[in-house]
Amino acid sequence: MIDSQYWSHVFKLDPDKPISDEALEAICESGTDAVIIGGTYGITYEKVIDLLGRIRRYALPCVLEVSNQDAIVPGFDHYFVPLVLNATNPEWILKPHQRAIKAFGTMIPWEDVSVVGYCVLNPASAVSELTQSETNLSLDDVVAYGRLAAHMLKLPYFYLEYSGTVGEASFVQAVYQQLKKETDLHLFYGGGISNRTQAETMLNGADTVVVGNVIYEDLRQALQTVPEGKR
Amino acid sequence: MIDSQYWSHVFKLDPDKPISDEALEAICESGTDAVIIGGTYGITYEKVIDLLGRIRRYALPCVLEVSNQDAIVPGFDHYFVPLVLNATNPEWILKPHQRAIKAFGTMIPWEDVSVVGYCVLNPASAVSELTQSETNLSLDDVVAYGRLAAHMLKLPYFYLEYSGTVGEASFVQAVYQQLKKETDLHLFYGGGISNRTQAETMLNGADTVVVGNVIYEDLRQALQTVPEGKR
Repeated sequence: MIDSQYWSHVFKLDPDKPISDEALEAICESGTDAVIIGGTYGITYEKVIDLLGRIRRYALPCVLEVSNQDAIVPGFDHYFVPLVLNATNPEWILKPHQRAIKAFGTMIPWEDVSVVGYCVLNPASAVSELTQSETNLSLDDVVAYGRLAAHMLKLPYFYLEYSGTVGEASFVQAVYQQLKKETDLHLFYGGGISNRTQAETMLNGADTVVVGNVIYEDLRQALQTVPEGKR
Repeated sequence: MIDSQYWSHVFKLDPDKPISDEALEAICESGTDAVIIGGTYGITYEKVIDLLGRIRRYALPCVLEVSNQDAIVPGFDHYFVPLVLNATNPEWILKPHQRAIKAFGTMIPWEDVSVVGYCVLNPASAVSELTQSETNLSLDDVVAYGRLAAHMLKLPYFYLEYSGTVGEASFVQAVYQQLKKETDLHLFYGGGISNRTQAETMLNGADTVVVGNVIYEDLRQALQTVPEGKR
């Protein structure tokens, strides 16, 4: 099991992007609460198992964000299964989940699996393109997706996914305030965080901020996004 | 709250179909465990509230199957919200739920609402046509939808919907046996039950059988579908 309720910062590593041993060590010893392995394109079993093996030298929890049933590697501490709530491509709403369950049958350790309700908000992102997400959403729309996640589907997590761009802080905070008031959702924010100030700002609109791309662009800045108390 | 775990038989009344006071009395005093109000086309607020008012003279629980956000009438004992798991029309997977939640906001009494995972299996039915359900499913496919309902979405109910036709008993029973073994789902069977033998047979493949159309075609036969111990 994972203690995700205490996570305020996680790094997301993309198995499709190369990372040096030194950079990986810096990430894993940065004080971050966990590492999530995930990405949209080019995710293979080999790339995932290789990255997992390298991260396993360190003590921190490692979660696989399952994006492709051919790349589900055993041995993670937990598995996040994305459900893109605002997808409009029916092949990417419930279909991949049914297919994966059919393929793996009774072998799935359900206690290690959590479904994460995604609301994808950057129309230019790979995930939006793939799932044909309806990203032109008002505050009421996003809050309604959060309520759907919490009250109808009993999902534990809700993920505002701005992948590649930074969301408007006041909007993200308004979603957070509304949903924390009336649900037990744990809220993730992900997208575009590339320095410490942005991480601090977005943490006002999320329980956990997810930091990804900047790892590959500016490692020093990436490490600065870990809250000071944790380092 | 409703004690649906004890229900083995319910009648489903379609607000779009006229029913005499005598017939309604016979249905409500038949010994059935509950009445569900629901249908696919022609459901309006006026028709639902009229039918609810007439059923409220009797003591049995009355549940609204919500098919249309303009026809959500307060005052039911419970609300079943269908989620058609094998729909391929994205307008009918999660979209109507998000829209209704957006429209009603914080007014929804969530403790009175349950989401029912539907697997629609008759390609010629109105619900299949509307939702463009993928009905050509193997046993493994249907079981996978049940596992998706139970383990990923934490739904309490799974509904095999043959609407208008009778399912193959051995298939329905196989789904039931598999899902009862490994989930806490309460299983509904609905579709084509028009006499006592069929009701008894399908009860081997369901916790609750739902009897609908025959009410309007042959009331005497419909009443015979209520298990003898209940009458």
